[in-house]
Amino acid sequence: MNLSKERLAHIVFEADDRAGKTFDVVLLIMIFGSILVAILDSVAAIRAKYGDIFLALEWIFTILFTVEYLLRLWLSKRTLGYVFSFYGIIDLLAILPTFLSFFVVNSQLLTVVRSMRLLRITRILKLGRYVSEAEFLKKSIRASSHKILLFVGFILTIVLIMGTLMFIIEGPEHGFYNIPIGMYWAIVTLTTVGFGDITPSTPLGQFLSSVIMLMGYAIIAVPTGIVSSEMAAQRTRDQIAKGITCKTCGKTGLDPEDSYCRACGEAL
Amino acid sequence: MNLSKERLAHIVFEADDRAGKTFDVVLLIMIFGSILVAILDSVAAIRAKYGDIFLALEWIFTILFTVEYLLRLWLSKRTLGYVFSFYGIIDLLAILPTFLSFFVVNSQLLTVVRSMRLLRITRILKLGRYVSEAEFLKKSIRASSHKILLFVGFILTIVLIMGTLMFIIEGPEHGFYNIPIGMYWAIVTLTTVGFGDITPSTPLGQFLSSVIMLMGYAIIAVPTGIVSSEMAAQRTRDQIAKGITCKTCGKTGLDPEDSYCRACGEAL
Amino acid sequence: MNLSKERLAHIVFEADDRAGKTFDVVLLIMIFGSILVAILDSVAAIRAKYGDIFLALEWIFTILFTVEYLLRLWLSKRTLGYVFSFYGIIDLLAILPTFLSFFVVNSQLLTVVRSMRLLRITRILKLGRYVSEAEFLKKSIRASSHKILLFVGFILTIVLIMGTLMFIIEGPEHGFYNIPIGMYWAIVTLTTVGFGDITPSTPLGQFLSSVIMLMGYAIIAVPTGIVSSEMAAQRTRDQIAKGITCKTCGKTGLDPEDSYCRACGEAL
Amino acid sequence: MNLSKERLAHIVFEADDRAGKTFDVVLLIMIFGSILVAILDSVAAIRAKYGDIFLALEWIFTILFTVEYLLRLWLSKRTLGYVFSFYGIIDLLAILPTFLSFFVVNSQLLTVVRSMRLLRITRILKLGRYVSEAEFLKKSIRASSHKILLFVGFILTIVLIMGTLMFIIEGPEHGFYNIPIGMYWAIVTLTTVGFGDITPSTPLGQFLSSVIMLMGYAIIAVPTGIVSSEMAAQRTRDQIAKGITCKTCGKTGLDPEDSYCRACGEAL
Repeated sequence: MNLSKERLAHIVFEADDRAGKTFDVVLLIMIFGSILVAILDSVAAIRAKYGDIFLALEWIFTILFTVEYLLRLWLSKRTLGYVFSFYGIIDLLAILPTFLSFFVVNSQLLTVVRSMRLLRITRILKLGRYVSEAEFLKKSIRASSHKILLFVGFILTIVLIMGTLMFIIEGPEHGFYNIPIGMYWAIVTLTTVGFGDITPSTPLGQFLSSVIMLMGYAIIAVPTGIVSSEMAAQRTRDQIAKGITCKTCGKTGLDPEDSYCRACGEAL
Repeated sequence: MNLSKERLAHIVFEADDRAGKTFDVVLLIMIFGSILVAILDSVAAIRAKYGDIFLALEWIFTILFTVEYLLRLWLSKRTLGYVFSFYGIIDLLAILPTFLSFFVVNSQLLTVVRSMRLLRITRILKLGRYVSEAEFLKKSIRASSHKILLFVGFILTIVLIMGTLMFIIEGPEHGFYNIPIGMYWAIVTLTTVGFGDITPSTPLGQFLSSVIMLMGYAIIAVPTGIVSSEMAAQRTRDQIAKGITCKTCGKTGLDPEDSYCRACGEAL
Repeated sequence: MNLSKERLAHIVFEADDRAGKTFDVVLLIMIFGSILVAILDSVAAIRAKYGDIFLALEWIFTILFTVEYLLRLWLSKRTLGYVFSFYGIIDLLAILPTFLSFFVVNSQLLTVVRSMRLLRITRILKLGRYVSEAEFLKKSIRASSHKILLFVGFILTIVLIMGTLMFIIEGPEHGFYNIPIGMYWAIVTLTTVGFGDITPSTPLGQFLSSVIMLMGYAIIAVPTGIVSSEMAAQRTRDQIAKGITCKTCGKTGLDPEDSYCRACGEAL
Repeated sequence: MNLSKERLAHIVFEADDRAGKTFDVVLLIMIFGSILVAILDSVAAIRAKYGDIFLALEWIFTILFTVEYLLRLWLSKRTLGYVFSFYGIIDLLAILPTFLSFFVVNSQLLTVVRSMRLLRITRILKLGRYVSEAEFLKKSIRASSHKILLFVGFILTIVLIMGTLMFIIEGPEHGFYNIPIGMYWAIVTLTTVGFGDITPSTPLGQFLSSVIMLMGYAIIAVPTGIVSSEMAAQRTRDQIAKGITCKTCGKTGLDPEDSYCRACGEAL
């Protein structure tokens, strides 16, 4: 088998032949496998039993991901462009934590590094390469991102004022120790999560809570309305973009299979 | 009354005459009745009093459902096709648990079988046969199923990363024992359920929780937007399907708002 | 002041002159006032202080509502029709509890009657008479009521199966005492309320909970989609209903202020 | 630098040159800075350390905001109009609390004033001046405000009746001490917040809760539907407003899809 650099690059970057597809499937299995190992390794009872196997597997995955990283580094036309791209950073983050834990022997730093090692969970983001159909979603969200930002600003303003008011009304004796805690509670309440770790005890506090809850229940309609109407508009734009235009009367969005314009009756 | 095989098949599979309708009504009563018995039987105080009656009723229901199963088996044109169809499996699941509990006398297995007997609750799915109008819903959901799957994948990615981060930040001392527990908590929080069985205690954990909550509150707009716009489009498609027919060339499904036939160009 | 029966009927049933409006305003004040009294009377600390005043006020309200009921009874063209109409029953419910509590002296029944007296809170439903603009909402909901019913049936099926599974998996030792409790928990979880009074403790139970939560988070999109698309269609229907139709080309939904058809150019 | 009154007014009220932009940026920094100080100052551990710095900063911010207030007062064409405008009141609220806390030495009033000082958090509302793009949101909400009000009235009616029923069913022994508490619980449940501080214990109470939860889960579709369809209609109106102009008669705002001008009948 003749593995020239061009052939390798084709295998790594494309998926239109057998070797390319095999490369992708192996990578997918490695991503899911390494994440499964990380998850299971965090469960004390399971680690006690299979900790050694997990460590061995982790090193195998790390070495294979390192090979993948070096391959992409070598095969990229613009090496620096890859290193600082989104996926370049993700690919590096996928291998760095394991190596770091190897070089650190200082017992004080070890706890930090052990935590940092869990960052290899970001390997899940490597999956992004295989999702090419997210376009419709992305377009709709981007088109309405400005309105969503405005909405988040509006929410945070309510949260700040309500959190402060609850801190004044309920006070530290009912668990509202300071404004950040009040804001945390306001977010828990406004988003209708409602953990119940902090709850209002005074009548006035319960009244204000009721107002926040009804507000949260009502204004959820706003982002939903934004995204819904944006998606409907996006769908219309896509239909128009796919359609043909009548040269006689200028009617847009006609079905390419039509023979005659449905507005003026002229042949297309 | 002449009950030929054809006549019986008509009664069982159709509901266009008196006998067929009676068969369906009896079946509906049996489904709801047997489920009610199973529910009441699970309440210790009620079982203590009426346990014997429930057992008797359960056997009556099981025998009747067995007769129904054998009838369908005998009357089906393609017997194997029925056995392995969705409703064939449901019909079998509706009778198997009761028979199993009869043949098992081993006391150790009995607990398992007693639990398994509750699977006869799946009889509720027999109702599916009577819901023919679910088409609109099914079509809308199927048409947007690809986007919904993508959305679930997106959610699970957030859940994995957030669950891991919370495990790192809060740790076992605050109830985040391992990554699966962290992911369970992230799902509880992101979906705005908020049980409150595990809650963040550190300021950093509370800050991250706030981010997850606002995220969950905002991105609920996405599936809603998908389904809403899909349903609107479905409605338009249905309207077009019901559309008008060109008198000149016979083309069907024309938009009632069109002025000229898009197939032959004649005025409508 | 000449108060003929016709004049009185006009005052009671219409609101187009001064007397009619005054009658309505007085009624509104009485409704809100009597509800406020009922609410405040339920707070032990406040009743201890003002209980006597509340009782007096309650009798005044009841006597006035009785006068209103008798007036409507007398002035209605079809007396029986009024008695059994929705508002006829509401008007009766608004006065019955207070009279009942007066005639019952048996101390055992008194607790029941005292509870029943709270049913005068249904006076709030008298407000319905003043909401004439609910038409748009009602039409949209009625048009999609069939789909919403189907959706509720779908939800209840999930709740039944999930509640039973959780009862099997978690069992009485974790608070899932029987299937009804399991179903209560499933509703609490699926609707994203999440009280946290009963929570899963086993890994399998937590996994199943996660599935229910994600389901509840995703399928909320369905009723929203139904109502949204129904409202959009309703809006279009209203526009078409208000619009005029071109006699030449049959184009519907034209603005009544237009002079020429925008589709064929002929004068309207 | 020649700072005439006109020049100053231009700097304060416009942002189209360097000085004007600098003025705005400084103001933005001051708003965010002073809010950050107020938040941090509420955390006991941080105040113990940096309390003095926070006090000094607070006075600097207050003096600068006072200068801003006096400037706006002096430069406004209609001084009284400004004082009683929304932003005039906000600007005054931003400085008043700090001055008040200075003049009050009475130790009993001090606690009240210290709480009141937190009202300077309303400075966040000064940001409103910089959000000019909220128009689309505002229009959609205002156009559907009537329906939303109706919806809130409908919700409060459910809350009143359900809260009363739960007070009757569960009673003080399960935490439902009076109707206001019952209504607070009904809001917590209907909005799907579900704190879990008060939960139903009796079977009947749990059944009624299930009904409220399913109701809350289903009717959230209504405000979402209202806002969604309103936004779609708003989008259409905006598109028509941006529409084309008839070359023959000069009629503006024509639908780009029209074939003939609806005012003069000429082809477009």
